[in-house]
Amino acid sequence: MNNEIKIGPPDLLVTGRYLLTGSSEKTIQENSGVVIAGDKVLETGATSRLAAKYPGIARIDEPHGLIMPGLVNVHTHAAMSCFRGLADDLPLMQWLQEYIFPVESKLTSEIVYQSTLLSIMEMIRSGTTSFCDMYLFAKDVARAASEVGMRAWVGEVLYDFPSPNYGELAAGFAYVEEMFAEYRDHHLITITVDPHAVYTCSPELLVRLKETAVKHGALYVIHLSENADEVKGALERFGKTPVMHLENLGLLDDKVLADHCVVLTDEEIALLAARGVKVAHCPESNMKLASGVARVPEMLKAGITVGLGTDGSASNNDVDMFGEMSTAAKLHKVYNLDPTVMDAETTVHMATMGGAQALAAGGQIGTIESGKKADLIVLDLNKPHLTPLYHVPSHLVYAARGGDVIHSVINGQVVMKNRTMLTMDEEAVMARMRAIADKIRV
Amino acid sequence: MNNEIKIGPPDLLVTGRYLLTGSSEKTIQENSGVVIAGDKVLETGATSRLAAKYPGIARIDEPHGLIMPGLVNVHTHAAMSCFRGLADDLPLMQWLQEYIFPVESKLTSEIVYQSTLLSIMEMIRSGTTSFCDMYLFAKDVARAASEVGMRAWVGEVLYDFPSPNYGELAAGFAYVEEMFAEYRDHHLITITVDPHAVYTCSPELLVRLKETAVKHGALYVIHLSENADEVKGALERFGKTPVMHLENLGLLDDKVLADHCVVLTDEEIALLAARGVKVAHCPESNMKLASGVARVPEMLKAGITVGLGTDGSASNNDVDMFGEMSTAAKLHKVYNLDPTVMDAETTVHMATMGGAQALAAGGQIGTIESGKKADLIVLDLNKPHLTPLYHVPSHLVYAARGGDVIHSVINGQVVMKNRTMLTMDEEAVMARMRAIADKIRV
Repeated sequence: MNNEIKIGPPDLLVTGRYLLTGSSEKTIQENSGVVIAGDKVLETGATSRLAAKYPGIARIDEPHGLIMPGLVNVHTHAAMSCFRGLADDLPLMQWLQEYIFPVESKLTSEIVYQSTLLSIMEMIRSGTTSFCDMYLFAKDVARAASEVGMRAWVGEVLYDFPSPNYGELAAGFAYVEEMFAEYRDHHLITITVDPHAVYTCSPELLVRLKETAVKHGALYVIHLSENADEVKGALERFGKTPVMHLENLGLLDDKVLADHCVVLTDEEIALLAARGVKVAHCPESNMKLASGVARVPEMLKAGITVGLGTDGSASNNDVDMFGEMSTAAKLHKVYNLDPTVMDAETTVHMATMGGAQALAAGGQIGTIESGKKADLIVLDLNKPHLTPLYHVPSHLVYAARGGDVIHSVINGQVVMKNRTMLTMDEEAVMARMRAIADKIRV
Repeated sequence: MNNEIKIGPPDLLVTGRYLLTGSSEKTIQENSGVVIAGDKVLETGATSRLAAKYPGIARIDEPHGLIMPGLVNVHTHAAMSCFRGLADDLPLMQWLQEYIFPVESKLTSEIVYQSTLLSIMEMIRSGTTSFCDMYLFAKDVARAASEVGMRAWVGEVLYDFPSPNYGELAAGFAYVEEMFAEYRDHHLITITVDPHAVYTCSPELLVRLKETAVKHGALYVIHLSENADEVKGALERFGKTPVMHLENLGLLDDKVLADHCVVLTDEEIALLAARGVKVAHCPESNMKLASGVARVPEMLKAGITVGLGTDGSASNNDVDMFGEMSTAAKLHKVYNLDPTVMDAETTVHMATMGGAQALAAGGQIGTIESGKKADLIVLDLNKPHLTPLYHVPSHLVYAARGGDVIHSVINGQVVMKNRTMLTMDEEAVMARMRAIADKIRV
């Protein structure tokens, strides 16, 4: 396969001490780099060879650097950054009814736009290059991402009751269609169809939205079986668990991304695997909200594609995928009382290629390979907490932090260099968020 | 109480946007600062008042800064930083027998000294100002800490078999006595007596070491009830659990610091509370080694003093107390399926004053108060992931990271300023660690 001609002339050579093209130790090359042409990876290889082959090319050289695929955050509500730390340590219903629902009713297009910018900045600064977002005012989420060069899967959340964004449901369907029209074949934004959950969407709404998703070939993203209360409620209302409710409606297939999936039976795991449903695993949110521990090792064993997500900043309270990896790897060990489960390579895979596959984008992102999109990050390994270095995947999961990421490239564009944001004004975004918080607080 | 005369003339005024003198929201003062005189806090208060009262004094002003007590890490094996990431995701016995024990047999005084320096650097850079260490070649641990101005409780680990440090046990007792002699009334170093565990120390050794501790008025630090295997082994060998074995020997009192305490019955929790035993809680190590989840909410309810610790970098793989706080708060929520347990203020207390009290040093460190030692840190709040700010303790637990700490003061000495280490050569320490790792690797 000769991608060189198709991809176009080389634009940038990024080199480091290590290049991790996938998620396992086998994919590590020492003293190597990546040649980027336009929005794609042209080729990878030894720095000495690439430097000789492409003289005069623009370069980012990081002698202590580790180059790796950008992280993929498969479940966020990015704009909830404006609620970060507003209310914590509360029972779920009190948290929702006394804090989150009242403040969400005050949301505006501008607040969502500004809050999403803040979250994207935080994501880029901690190594994420793609995110999948479900929220209100989703056009503003997409606008924020596309303006600053962030790759995103974006869906407007729909449910039976009126929305602070579009109002009555009929307007919601129109809003979703407008999003599809606006972002068709966009280089960064992919529109998804997002019913909130089985407890907030009637069977009719769930079915109609699946028809919308099928029409556009889009992902169908839904919160599913997040905790025991959700399962209990579905059993009372429909006589079926949330998973079996969707199955009964004929909605489960390989274009479904199910968020959380904390409470699953053996039979449901087998069913999700058989249907090709993808799962977004959000361990820190599940811990903080006391939802439970998803059976991820069993899901992976059953062949389910699992990606990692942070959920929103109101229930985490960050969007740092390095922290999420560390927590995921440790949580499943103690939950299963087995230190061998969720090893480092499995965890890195879940945060990169697993996430890409969960978004049906495994052919585009998730690894660093010739012909794929140039979404990559560079970590500075010259840090006390990353010294010494014996195994790269182990360090990424158990020792590295988001703050170790110094450069970020998305779709071939350098969006952060030496921890300076190149496509957004960091101080201005924070200042606007403080002003928004002053209004939310009162 | 007039501490001003006793403390001496003021040396430094540290000011910030917020001053957190304790661990609760009630202890927050806005636009305030701390006056340091010698090794102690002289007074705290509004920046405007202090600036007027002490004109011309040296200052560190951080307009976006949060000043808070330095974190207290109550359980480390600091020198294990040289094994960071050497072997992960393995069953405990395979990890110990195939990796840790063989490399520990290669340890030398110099390796322990250098590895401890690296760990101290990492601790200071992530907000810790005191640590309690149990390891081999403990004189070198104490030497490293005292040289760079770090506060430390240091004990040489003793067990029935010969040690890579002192050799036969008789020499171990002499080594401990030498440590007490060398560091009596030291301004930073406090010597402890450290039997390794009930499964590695005979009853005679446990009793003899308690006599040593009592003679010196020292803490008696021991790994206790870390996992189910330890309990099973003690039941088989002594017919008692590890806790009841120590009780039977008459060793439990308020100068005992018990590390881990993962597997405890209701009766044992009540007994530890009655005896005044302190507990070092190390959630990340317990998760990664799949040891289990300590019943910390029940311990706190019973009145047990619990401090937070990271354990060594071979089983964590860092010494970052901010990460440990975040994990602790979330782990107990999901383990108890209750989002209200281990709230942010409780968690910050455990990492500051709880730790100080666990080390029998609550009168000296753990809060910022006139007359106490000047051990404090300053965080930069002007970061995307810390914006907006509604509640300080919540941010410290759920959003802040070790890398947000920009200044650190220990015993009145500025040891880190603007993330530059003032008492150690960062690059040299890392370079020496890489050379040590090259020898360990082969």
